[in-house]
Amino acid sequence: MLATFLFHENFALAIEIIGTVAFATSGAFAAMQHRLDPFGVLIIAFATSVGGGTIRDLLLGVPVFWMHDMLICSVAFITTILAMIFKSIEKNFKNTLFIFDSLGLGLFTIIGVQKGISAGLHPVICITLGTITGCFGGVLRDILINRIPLLLRKEIYATACIIGGTTFLLLNNIPGIPKEFIQIITISIIVIIRIIAVKFKLHMPLIYQSDASD
Amino acid sequence: MLATFLFHENFALAIEIIGTVAFATSGAFAAMQHRLDPFGVLIIAFATSVGGGTIRDLLLGVPVFWMHDMLICSVAFITTILAMIFKSIEKNFKNTLFIFDSLGLGLFTIIGVQKGISAGLHPVICITLGTITGCFGGVLRDILINRIPLLLRKEIYATACIIGGTTFLLLNNIPGIPKEFIQIITISIIVIIRIIAVKFKLHMPLIYQSDASD
Amino acid sequence: MLATFLFHENFALAIEIIGTVAFATSGAFAAMQHRLDPFGVLIIAFATSVGGGTIRDLLLGVPVFWMHDMLICSVAFITTILAMIFKSIEKNFKNTLFIFDSLGLGLFTIIGVQKGISAGLHPVICITLGTITGCFGGVLRDILINRIPLLLRKEIYATACIIGGTTFLLLNNIPGIPKEFIQIITISIIVIIRIIAVKFKLHMPLIYQSDASD
Repeated sequence: MLATFLFHENFALAIEIIGTVAFATSGAFAAMQHRLDPFGVLIIAFATSVGGGTIRDLLLGVPVFWMHDMLICSVAFITTILAMIFKSIEKNFKNTLFIFDSLGLGLFTIIGVQKGISAGLHPVICITLGTITGCFGGVLRDILINRIPLLLRKEIYATACIIGGTTFLLLNNIPGIPKEFIQIITISIIVIIRIIAVKFKLHMPLIYQSDASD
Repeated sequence: MLATFLFHENFALAIEIIGTVAFATSGAFAAMQHRLDPFGVLIIAFATSVGGGTIRDLLLGVPVFWMHDMLICSVAFITTILAMIFKSIEKNFKNTLFIFDSLGLGLFTIIGVQKGISAGLHPVICITLGTITGCFGGVLRDILINRIPLLLRKEIYATACIIGGTTFLLLNNIPGIPKEFIQIITISIIVIIRIIAVKFKLHMPLIYQSDASD
Repeated sequence: MLATFLFHENFALAIEIIGTVAFATSGAFAAMQHRLDPFGVLIIAFATSVGGGTIRDLLLGVPVFWMHDMLICSVAFITTILAMIFKSIEKNFKNTLFIFDSLGLGLFTIIGVQKGISAGLHPVICITLGTITGCFGGVLRDILINRIPLLLRKEIYATACIIGGTTFLLLNNIPGIPKEFIQIITISIIVIIRIIAVKFKLHMPLIYQSDASD
């Protein structure tokens, strides 16, 4: 009983730590690409890794998760320092940024959906909350470094969160499937959709006429 | 007595729904203009329609209105879907965006001022809160799609909110005027100021010297 | 005893007022540089002066400081009006903006660190909170007027906050140093670092390789 509880707790914590590592790395690489100084990189990486969750907690009206949690802050800071050191080895900014952004997107979307379910929100609002948690760390990063937000690029982005979040809710209603299995499956769906979309330059059909005049 | 209460309640709800429809439409058209995919359009439209009210509720320290309100979320989502379908009929993006943005601005400014009065805030802070509620949905939309915020264009924008909000507070202190009448008048003032300003390219005088060097 | 309390209270209030004046001025000048109309200038100046503290209070989960505080709102509004009038005398936008931005940065960083200490947060989180309080008013200003955020320029910016905040925490642990003395010293450190950095175009070393592709 206690062992099961500890396993669930540790699994949830592992997801949060990996997500923090992923988004901190993506933020650090984006900031280094813009040649910020080390402390500037630290701030952008921190904002990227905690931004989505901060907005989620403000919307839920619960205490902001990282204010009393040195573990997550330490993970974000240490990741950033490691990213700055590893930079001398890793040359391919663009791919690194993309892979870590996708991973963080998957992990944080599912955390957001779960927090919505725990708060007893309507399924549609849970998916919205998950999408906000997943996307807004990256949106904040892109706004702070004055890049065109990834959200706006042609390739499927928010769509991946919505599909992943919906799958999570559907599987969650089927009794007997272990929660950890659902999490791994739906996180993988989001990451794989993003990778396939970018690799094959897939984008959602524009269902409205796209020959828009200004 | 009950009938009066229900009338007031329904009138307030009607204002909120029309405002949500207006801003969701303006967000959807702005996003389609930038050729986002349908789910991207959905997110921008949603952020535009609930953004100002979300910031208002966070500032007031009350629960964020749409987290437990499927009606407003449904209105925003259905409006966006209809906007994408209607797009094939409506060619004139720019005018549609402008008219719905003005309507949303008027409706949401007055909702914001009223919430400030209900919270017992100082009149100046009520007007500030109304202006934030009215303007920041649109500001968020413009930041997310990387446009120059409407707030920054030459034509009167924030000024319309401040004039409308001040008129609301003044009329509200005169006994005997029905609340609904005050709402309709002040919302109309904001919308009409915006339409006249844009039509005749009016702008507020620059009272400081405008021959600024950088 | 009462006299000591009143002195401490008044000193804290003085820091907050000077910080508000400094950031409102920097916001007003930035907005005038972009030729916004007077009400537009008012909104940008207000957002700059209360933005960092608003985010700080939301993160701390305490009531947003200016919602019930007409004094700070009045200071922000009156400063903006004076800035618009003085504009006809002061020609050098850039320097004025820079000096007031640096002063506000120093004052607000230390307020943020102190609020973190009062809330019993971990030292590292106190410094993070101070840096956010100091930087995000200016970041908001730069995002609203569509400028490249100062945070991203080469010259030391966030670094100054982190050094000042850390010094505050270290001195704060040494018994016997008057609090007001620590505040004046650390605020001065931040302002002086900024002025020296800009004057001599100093920047932090890029510890990662800066010959980035893409």
